[in-house]
This record gives sequence, C-alpha cells and structure tokens, in this order.
Amino acid sequence: MSPRPIQIVEVGPRDGLQNEKAVLDPATRAELVLKLEAAGARRIEAVSFVHPRLVPQMAGAEDVMAALPAAPGRSRIGLVLNGKGYDRALGTGVDEVNVSLSVTDGFGLRNQGLAVRDQVAMLSEILARRHNSDGADTPVPALSATLSCVWGCPFDGEVSVAQVTDLVGELAALGVVEIGLADTIGVGDPWSVTRKIEAARAAAPDATLRLHFHDTRNTGVANAFAAVEAGVDVLDASVGGIGGCPFAPGATGNVATEDLVYMLERAGYATGYDLDALIATARWIGDRIGRPTPSALSRAGGWPKA
Amino acid sequence: MSPRPIQIVEVGPRDGLQNEKAVLDPATRAELVLKLEAAGARRIEAVSFVHPRLVPQMAGAEDVMAALPAAPGRSRIGLVLNGKGYDRALGTGVDEVNVSLSVTDGFGLRNQGLAVRDQVAMLSEILARRHNSDGADTPVPALSATLSCVWGCPFDGEVSVAQVTDLVGELAALGVVEIGLADTIGVGDPWSVTRKIEAARAAAPDATLRLHFHDTRNTGVANAFAAVEAGVDVLDASVGGIGGCPFAPGATGNVATEDLVYMLERAGYATGYDLDALIATARWIGDRIGRPTPSALSRAGGWPKA
Repeated sequence: MSPRPIQIVEVGPRDGLQNEKAVLDPATRAELVLKLEAAGARRIEAVSFVHPRLVPQMAGAEDVMAALPAAPGRSRIGLVLNGKGYDRALGTGVDEVNVSLSVTDGFGLRNQGLAVRDQVAMLSEILARRHNSDGADTPVPALSATLSCVWGCPFDGEVSVAQVTDLVGELAALGVVEIGLADTIGVGDPWSVTRKIEAARAAAPDATLRLHFHDTRNTGVANAFAAVEAGVDVLDASVGGIGGCPFAPGATGNVATEDLVYMLERAGYATGYDLDALIATARWIGDRIGRPTPSALSRAGGWPKA
Repeated sequence: MSPRPIQIVEVGPRDGLQNEKAVLDPATRAELVLKLEAAGARRIEAVSFVHPRLVPQMAGAEDVMAALPAAPGRSRIGLVLNGKGYDRALGTGVDEVNVSLSVTDGFGLRNQGLAVRDQVAMLSEILARRHNSDGADTPVPALSATLSCVWGCPFDGEVSVAQVTDLVGELAALGVVEIGLADTIGVGDPWSVTRKIEAARAAAPDATLRLHFHDTRNTGVANAFAAVEAGVDVLDASVGGIGGCPFAPGATGNVATEDLVYMLERAGYATGYDLDALIATARWIGDRIGRPTPSALSRAGGWPKA
C-alpha cells in the first residue's frame, strides 16, 4: 500500500517574506510565486491584505496578484485579518482567503487589535456577507481560517486543549470547512501535537485540519511527522525556511518546504513537489533577501544523489 | 503517569569536535567534558582512540582523560575502531569503550580499513580478550558497539532492514549488551526509523538499543521522536549540534543535545539536563571553534521563558 498524498501549502511569499528584514517589490514576490508553482506548489499563500504601514514587506498585494497569470488547478491564497482586508481581497483574483485568528486575547489584541470574541465576530460578519452574496455574478474566493498560538502565546503563555477545541468547534459550527492550527512561535512538541489534533478532530469531525509549524526550536519537522501520523493531510511550509520569529530574534521561521518534502518523499508520500527545483528556488530567494536560507536541504542537498 | 526517563549520551567532544575544522587542545576538550557533566551529562563520549594522523582533532585522548577527575556516577566513553585502539583505551580510565562498525563494506573499508566481516572478527577478538581478562585485577571498561550507516551509506547507497538485523543479531549473540544504530549521514526518515528499530529489537530482544541521529537533512529530531515512540530509552546527541557531515559540506551534524532536551522535557520526559546550562555550553564551545553553533535552542532560547 502506498502512503497517501500529502498536500503542502506553500506560505513563503507571505509568512516567510513578511518576517524578513528585506522588503521585496511586488514583481519579485510574483516571480517567487511562479517559481514555486513551477516547483510543484498547488496552493500558495501569495499575498496578505494588511496595511502597508504595519507590514511593509506585504505592500502591493494587488500588484502581486495582477502580475500572476491565471493558472487553472493552482490556488493563490490571500491572508486577511479583518473585514477591510477581505474587501481588498475581493476582485484581486485570489482563489482563497485565509482568515487569521488567535486563540489568545494577548496575541489577537497585538496582532490585529481584536480579542478572541471580537475576532470570532469579525469572522462571522465576513461569513454572513459571503452567504448574502450567494448567486451573485462575481465568484467568491474559498475561505479557510487559521488559529494562531495553538501551542503557546508569546504574551499569554501556555494554551490548553480546551482553548483550542472550543474555538475549533465554533469555527466548524460557523461553516468553516478548513481550519488551520498554527504553532506560531514554534514551541510545540510532537506529543502535544498529537493530542491537540485528536481533540480538534473530535470537535470538528467534518472539517479538514491544516497544520502550520515553525522550526524555531527544531521541532517543526517532528511536529509535521506527528501530524501526518495523526491523519493530517495538509501542512503549511515556507521555501528555504525563510522568515523568522519576531519573538526570538535570530531564530529560524516556518518549517522549510524542501525539508518536509524530503522527509515525506523519502518515506514514499507523494507531495507533487520537485525537490531539486525547490532547492534551486530556496537559493534564488536567499540571494534576493541577502542571506542563505536556513533550510537543511538547501545546504545538504537531497539523497540518494541523482 | 509521568513519561519515562530518557538518557541522552553526549557525543559532542567526540563526534562533534571530530568533524569541526578547528582543532582544540586536550585541555579545552576536557573542559568541555566537565561543563557538559555539570549541565547534566551522565554518559559522555569523551575521546576517540584513533591515529592522530587520521583525525588530528582527536589527538591526545590520553591527555584528555588524564585531565578529568574521577566522577562517580558519570561514565566517560572512548571510541575504538580496532584492537589497537582498544589497547590504548585500557588504562586511560575510560568507563566504557564504544566499538564502531559499519553495516556496509564501503564505509567500513574507507573509515577503518575493514569490510563488514573483518569488522565483526575485530570485535570478536576484542570480546575474547575481555573474556580472558575476567578476574584480573585491573577493571575492564564496559563495552557497547555502534553500527554506522544504518539508514544509508555515502558509498554503497541504500541499506536494507535485513542488512541491519543480521548484524544486530550477530552482535547480540557475541554478547554485546548495548547496540547503537547510527544514521551517520542523516538520511533516514522517521517511518524507516520505526521499522528498523522494531526489526532490530526482534533480532536482539535482550539488548539495549541506543539511537544516534544526524540533523543533516533536518530529520534528526523527528527521528528521535519516532525512536522514543518505538520504546528507545537511550539517544546520542551533540551539544550545539556541532560537527557536520564530511559527505555534505556546509550541512549540520549530530542532532543537538539542547534541541532534544527541549522537545523531551517540554513533553514531560526527564533527561537530567539543565537546558540553560546546555545552551551556555553550546555558546562557549561556539566561541572555541570560531562559529555560532547551529542548534535551534542556542539561537531561540527555551520556552516558556524562565
């Protein structure tokens, strides 16, 4: 029996670049998206609809999208933090919007000015507007929601299983069909990953769970392994492991796409990615941001050697 | 129920430093051993009895051992590759010798000039001499054996489960009570780790299995997690993740002690190590070898913050 396919959602152009010091122009970011799609990315977090004053690295989301030719079978995702971001996303051609919410008040207030209850109200309002637009002429992008700080919060500390499952159940009841669970600051261990995934699945048995790990403390790949073992089919990753952690200066960021692809493909899982093309793209973006990317595969190369 | 204790054997002074460009004098290497013991290491690969022309980084093993005061409850291990190394180890005060063998002819011939059958004969000869010295006045160090290239060989390529279990069974039949399985070039994935551990246990049900992972392709921590889940209680690791891989220039080396300690302690496993003292030691040895150590914890720090 062959292992099942695992979908890796590429988040380098958004979560990766957003946390780099270098600010890349929209044309370069669009080029990164196209290179990643050529390397096998089928779903890609391409842009973020946040205010450019707050996150200059993500300025010009509309320009990035305008530079991307339509690509059937590929899905470009735009991150939104509120109704205003959602308004911007409509009409740019994004295929999906990902609404970010925090499981903790501390992170929610600092990241998007909203406590947890207010974030849920914000999401409900977006969902209501989508419902009202059913049957309209303009196609509406698909919607997923991602919970940040599921394994710990830089402001509020530890996060319990119940904090996560209460929100997961609420999102599922609101009709969210894909729910992301993010270890935003990279503090989870694989045993706790298994526990929170099992609890989240019990709270939302019909939702697809999408897991998002950071390699800040070198547990990202182990956590991804635990997630796959727990039945998860969708993982986020960032080419080159670019990004970082604003709460741990000098640390690495998202788990690297090529590191996940290596582990999964070596074990027989199909990811749809070309490892060599990913490594080449990691080196290319490293040149653009002015530092070698931290992924292991971009340094060691794959194995067995071709 | 609390998770069981996991023993981490510190191999930085040997496998780590052996693969660094910097050559440290015996006094500095002894200081590293003492700092690691102060940070919690109970078993530590302190020296290697190889020819200094072949591995100048390990020259003066006798001087390192002479600089270490006796420490009841701590075990200093010396690596040996042949009978001559074993002779050198006797009388230096090492508490254990670890005999290294390769599961492949290609690596065995290049690393120690012996094909697999000749390596087994070498080990048998050492074991016979130990047997003959039973009852002698001089205490004989304990003995373990480690198989290298269990997940792949830089010269011979893929390694099958049967190649590993045949040798594991043979070592157990010779009376080796602790058998190490090493992913020398860091190519294993956690699913294959589970499979080879289960097969090795079936081949040597009474032996203690000790697992040795490299983070060359960022699977080291995931592989350690899989090993613990498969029932393994003894893992090797190197402070700071120092070392590297002669077959992948620029890549990282052994899985870092502090990265393993973070994952395990966060999940409730007792390792006996002080994470902050380990991180301080990683930074200290980084200054000695002239580069920041690659471990994640030495960059990000632990969590929750003290």
